[in-house]
Amino acid sequence: MIKESPLFWPAHMKDGSLYVLDETLIPKKVHYIKVRNTQEAVKVIRDMKTRAFGQFLVVLNTFLLELQNGRALSKEKLIEKIKETAEALNNSRPTFPFSEVTSIIVGWAQKASAENLDLIPFVTKNIHGYLQGIRYRRLERVQKIAALIKDGDSILTHCNVSGELAMAAAICKDQEKQIHFFATETRPYLQGAKLTAWELQKMGAQVTLVADNAIGSLMADEMVNKVIVGSDRSCANGDFANKIGTYQIAVLAKEFEIPFYVLTQPSNKIKSGEDIPIEVRDPQELLNFSGKRIVAGEVKGFYPGFDVVPSDLITESIAIDVN
Amino acid sequence: MIKESPLFWPAHMKDGSLYVLDETLIPKKVHYIKVRNTQEAVKVIRDMKTRAFGQFLVVLNTFLLELQNGRALSKEKLIEKIKETAEALNNSRPTFPFSEVTSIIVGWAQKASAENLDLIPFVTKNIHGYLQGIRYRRLERVQKIAALIKDGDSILTHCNVSGELAMAAAICKDQEKQIHFFATETRPYLQGAKLTAWELQKMGAQVTLVADNAIGSLMADEMVNKVIVGSDRSCANGDFANKIGTYQIAVLAKEFEIPFYVLTQPSNKIKSGEDIPIEVRDPQELLNFSGKRIVAGEVKGFYPGFDVVPSDLITESIAIDVN
Repeated sequence: MIKESPLFWPAHMKDGSLYVLDETLIPKKVHYIKVRNTQEAVKVIRDMKTRAFGQFLVVLNTFLLELQNGRALSKEKLIEKIKETAEALNNSRPTFPFSEVTSIIVGWAQKASAENLDLIPFVTKNIHGYLQGIRYRRLERVQKIAALIKDGDSILTHCNVSGELAMAAAICKDQEKQIHFFATETRPYLQGAKLTAWELQKMGAQVTLVADNAIGSLMADEMVNKVIVGSDRSCANGDFANKIGTYQIAVLAKEFEIPFYVLTQPSNKIKSGEDIPIEVRDPQELLNFSGKRIVAGEVKGFYPGFDVVPSDLITESIAIDVN
Repeated sequence: MIKESPLFWPAHMKDGSLYVLDETLIPKKVHYIKVRNTQEAVKVIRDMKTRAFGQFLVVLNTFLLELQNGRALSKEKLIEKIKETAEALNNSRPTFPFSEVTSIIVGWAQKASAENLDLIPFVTKNIHGYLQGIRYRRLERVQKIAALIKDGDSILTHCNVSGELAMAAAICKDQEKQIHFFATETRPYLQGAKLTAWELQKMGAQVTLVADNAIGSLMADEMVNKVIVGSDRSCANGDFANKIGTYQIAVLAKEFEIPFYVLTQPSNKIKSGEDIPIEVRDPQELLNFSGKRIVAGEVKGFYPGFDVVPSDLITESIAIDVN
């Protein structure tokens, strides 16, 4: 039995509502936000209360909410509602391929309607089965990551890998491998400082925080021998998008011949990295820290939320199929 | 007449005291700290109230203070005091070559003594002359930087170049060159956000702040065509040390074939980058942001204050001799 990190499965249904871990409050507080409908789900996604895999979970569970909320509706109205939910979720953030998942759910609803199946239980059961499958494959991947990590490794990670890396670290600890992690801060949201460092420590791993600008120095001084990062979106040709900063880490890893591993959810919907739309977020998220402005009045900011790593910089992609 | 940035000459004598610009309060407040003796000077340096060239100015001016304070002392006691001052300043921060400057002052004092010159006026006059020479050469370099910058340039800079880059930008503006700057935040002290962005804007330049992790993305998207940075310490072979993060910018610039310029104060005292001692600063400076802790309890931090850029990554070194 693998010890589970709260970030591994950050959203769950309980008593008819969806509870989403508010990752913006970690490490201060472990608090779950109650979500009851699509509108609230879109807000949680847009406000980045949860990220990456957490958003994927929110998307899937939102359909469970709307199936519940729509119990009294006619089949036609319910299908309409499911389509609207898919549309609203698809439009919540540009970089994420939510439509790849939402189209599956819409497909189930249409199939239930065409084949005259009982729509709500059919789609609900399928979503539950889908989630179980993903859960199983992610737990398998945690084992793969643990096997990849060798005694004596010093591993650099960036942003947050939603539980899997920390759980692999816990397995390595059980196996008495002596390992160490460097987590980047990951400005401006500080996911590395707030989530990754917290989570790795919680799972019993040794972790040291560094600024995003210290990577070249760490690598030149041979303080890192592996890079493991997650991905937000993958392409058919192996390119992937992840939190801003991942790309320059990959370039530096290549320069220093340090193996660069990425956890991906492959997709054939997007051909290559050039086709991934990069979300440019509100510069205020960069120019303010904890409500305090870090610059003088008129200074502008530029905050691309993600960057693209081309496949030739990747040593190995540790993939799971979530579709 | 070049419009002068407050960061160009951040320490000056007035009414027998040294006034040092408190750069940690910028951009909120332009405040000067009164320094009366070596002990207070060492504190200003160690607390990074001023940096790089500002620290160099503090070092030189501290001797003017101690010459004043030692008016009543015998020649022997005064030379002893000057040596103690040199020693205290040399030990204030490991990465800086203060001894290269302090040894010159000690030399003047010894010369005055050996040749039976009037010690205080002799050394004071020499220090003033030395400072004037540096001022002149730095103003010359501002012109060189302005000439280097072409119409249409988009220039990336890191940390803060103590006035010169911003003053060059003001000259470019007078020449009606359309130019733009990207300033990195420069975690953890945020010199880029607090000093560089403020200073460039104050001098009328267009500046956009980016996180330290966005450099690879900016370069891949061809948003930067020149890099100009300062240096804290230079070596005989052309290597230099500067604020942590400079090295990875240099590696990325090479990867993207973007010219990389550095302002240096060459020295033959240190052979190569390998011989520069790198100051590892208190991790608390990283683990706290604007007085707020950004990590959970036990997480460690690693904060090397500087890194070394080898000469083969430098397109051109724009040097002035300050010794």
